[in-house]
Amino acid sequence: MNDLRPIRWAESGDAVEILDQTRLPDAEVTLRLESADAVAAAIRTMQIRGAPAIGILGAMGLALHAAQYTRLPAAEFRQRLSQARDLLVAARPTGANLRWAVDRLQRLADSLGKDVDNGTVACKLWGEATRILDEDRAMCRAIGEHGLRLLGEGPVRVLTHCNAGALATGGIGTATAPLYVAQEAGRAVTVFATETRPLLQGSRLTAWELSRAGIDVTLVIDSAAALLMRDGAVDAVIVGADRIAANGDVANKVGTYSLSVLARQHGIPFYVAAPSSTVDLSTATGADIPIEIRDPDEVRLGFGKRTAPGEVPVRVPAFDVTPAANIAAIITETGVHRPPFGPSLAGA
Amino acid sequence: MNDLRPIRWAESGDAVEILDQTRLPDAEVTLRLESADAVAAAIRTMQIRGAPAIGILGAMGLALHAAQYTRLPAAEFRQRLSQARDLLVAARPTGANLRWAVDRLQRLADSLGKDVDNGTVACKLWGEATRILDEDRAMCRAIGEHGLRLLGEGPVRVLTHCNAGALATGGIGTATAPLYVAQEAGRAVTVFATETRPLLQGSRLTAWELSRAGIDVTLVIDSAAALLMRDGAVDAVIVGADRIAANGDVANKVGTYSLSVLARQHGIPFYVAAPSSTVDLSTATGADIPIEIRDPDEVRLGFGKRTAPGEVPVRVPAFDVTPAANIAAIITETGVHRPPFGPSLAGA
Repeated sequence: MNDLRPIRWAESGDAVEILDQTRLPDAEVTLRLESADAVAAAIRTMQIRGAPAIGILGAMGLALHAAQYTRLPAAEFRQRLSQARDLLVAARPTGANLRWAVDRLQRLADSLGKDVDNGTVACKLWGEATRILDEDRAMCRAIGEHGLRLLGEGPVRVLTHCNAGALATGGIGTATAPLYVAQEAGRAVTVFATETRPLLQGSRLTAWELSRAGIDVTLVIDSAAALLMRDGAVDAVIVGADRIAANGDVANKVGTYSLSVLARQHGIPFYVAAPSSTVDLSTATGADIPIEIRDPDEVRLGFGKRTAPGEVPVRVPAFDVTPAANIAAIITETGVHRPPFGPSLAGA
Repeated sequence: MNDLRPIRWAESGDAVEILDQTRLPDAEVTLRLESADAVAAAIRTMQIRGAPAIGILGAMGLALHAAQYTRLPAAEFRQRLSQARDLLVAARPTGANLRWAVDRLQRLADSLGKDVDNGTVACKLWGEATRILDEDRAMCRAIGEHGLRLLGEGPVRVLTHCNAGALATGGIGTATAPLYVAQEAGRAVTVFATETRPLLQGSRLTAWELSRAGIDVTLVIDSAAALLMRDGAVDAVIVGADRIAANGDVANKVGTYSLSVLARQHGIPFYVAAPSSTVDLSTATGADIPIEIRDPDEVRLGFGKRTAPGEVPVRVPAFDVTPAANIAAIITETGVHRPPFGPSLAGA
C-alpha cells in the first residue's frame, strides 16, 4: 500500500515537508522548508525531482512566501511575490511544470484587485497551491485506473524504467499508478525495475518506493531487461514521459527507446503513462524535441569513484525519443489513447 | 597501436609480470609474480581476468614453480608440481582454459620419464608455457585478420560489449582484434564501448585499452546502444564469447542478448569473435549452458556506495545466451563461420 506523501504541508501550515530524495535509499529524511528560498534550494540540489513534484513544490513555495510577508505594504508585498516567482522559476529553468505552476499562482495574485488585502491574497495562493497538489493526486489516480484496464485479469507483471513514481508526483506516480491501483484492488503485482544508468533512479527510487509499499519488486540492470522479456516474465512495459509530441513520439529517460524496441520484438505491449500536460501539441514529432546532453563524469565518476579513463569521451544523452510506432497506448488522466495518436492526443 | 603486453615473462626469466586489472583505469601498475602461489592469488583476486589470459598465466605459474624446485629429489619435485597444479586450478574452479593450460603442462611433465632430470623438466615446462602464450597471440591475430574481412572497405565503426580485448588474452584480444588489425592497416576506426553493468568492464578496461592504443573510442551506457544503432553510427557489433554451443548459440556477458536483438532490429550485423576452443561441441544448444548468478550486492553496492535498498531482490545473471539466429558470423582463428553454424563449427 502506497502511503508515501513526498510533498505535504506541515501540520502547522507554515512550512512544506518533503522527502529528501538525495538521501534515498539509505535514509528516509523529511525536510521542513520554511521559505521560497529553501524551496528553490531543494529544487536546485535535486532533493526533490520529477516534473509534477517540482511544479507542486514551486507553487507551495510561492504560497509560503506570500503568507510570510502579509504585514508589508501592499505594493511591496506584490513586489516580493514577483521576486519569489522569478527565484523559483530559475531553480530549474527547463522545468515546464515548475513555470506553469508558479505562474498559475502569480496570475491568480495579479487577477486580485489592489484593494484585496495581503492576507486574502496569501490565503488564496495557499488554496491554489493546495489545489495543484490535489489535482496532481487526482491525475495520478485517474492514470492508475485507466492504466489498470490495460493490464487484463489476473496477476500484473510489469517492467518499468527510471522513476515515474510517487516520488515524482504529489500522488501515486504516473507509470507506477496502475501498479498501486492494482495492489489496492487485491491483484498480485510483480514489478521489474531497471536500474537506469547513469543516475540509477530505478535502483534508488523506484525499487525503494515500490518495496516500501509492499509491492514485489526486483531490480535488474538495464541490459538484462531483454532476458526477462524473452523468458516470459513481463506482460507489459510502462514508462513515464518527459514530453509527448503531437504524433505520439515520446521523449523519456535514456534507455526508454531501447526497451521499446525490445518489447516490440518480444511481442510485449509498451505503454507510456503521463499527465496530459506532457503532451506538447506545438511539437510535431520527436525529431523536434531537443535532447539534453549530461555531464560525461556522471558516467565516468558516477559513484564517487573513477570507473572510466578521464580522457575517454562519453556520449550521455539524458533522454531519448521512442517513436509512436513502438507504443501500444498512451495513458493520461483523460483516458487511454491508442494509435494513431495524433487525433486522440489533440482532443485530450 | 596496441603495444599492451598484459602478461609477459620478466626479463630476468624468473617471474611473470602482469598488469593489475583491479587498478585500471586509475593506474597502470605492473605486478611481479614470483611463485605459483602469487599467480593463484592474482587469479583469485581478479588482478587478471579473461579466460585466455588466466589460462596462460596458470601455465606460466606452473613453469615458475618447476624452476624453483629443481634441486629437490625427483619424486618430491614431481609431487610439488602436482600440488601446484591443484592450487592453480582451484584459483578459478570454473575456468576451462585455466584447467586446460595447466593440465597441458602437467601432462607434458608426466610424459617425461623418471630418468629425465628436474632441470630439463622445468625447462620444457617453461617452453610449453611460452608456447601457450605464443599460440594465444597468433590466435588473436588470426581472429583479427578474419574479422577485418567482414568489415568491408572504408572506415570501421564497431560497437563492442564488456572486454574481450587485449587485457583478456595474451595478444590483441578477440572482439578487439579486428579493430587493432584495422588500425595497423591504416583504416579509420571508431569504437563504441558499452559500459557493461554491473562490473563495468567496458568502462574500466575496453575504453582504457583502446584509448591507450590511440583508437577513437566513445563510452556509452548500455541502454544507449540502441540509439547509436538507430542513428546509423554503428556498422557492426563484435562481442566475445564465454561458451559457444554446437548449434552456434553463444553464452557471453549479460547484455549481449539485448544487443543482438537490437542489432537485428536495426539491420546491423552481429559478430562473435572467440578462440575455437570456446566452441563446446558437447553442449547442443544454449539451453544447456548453466548461467552463473552473481552476488546482488554487485548491483546494490556496486561502487562502494548503496544505490538500492538492501532488501530489494536483484536478478543478476553473469551471462546470457544469444541465439544463433541473431548472429551473422562467428569468427575464430580457423576462419569465419556463417549460419547454419552446426556443420561449420563441428569442422573448426
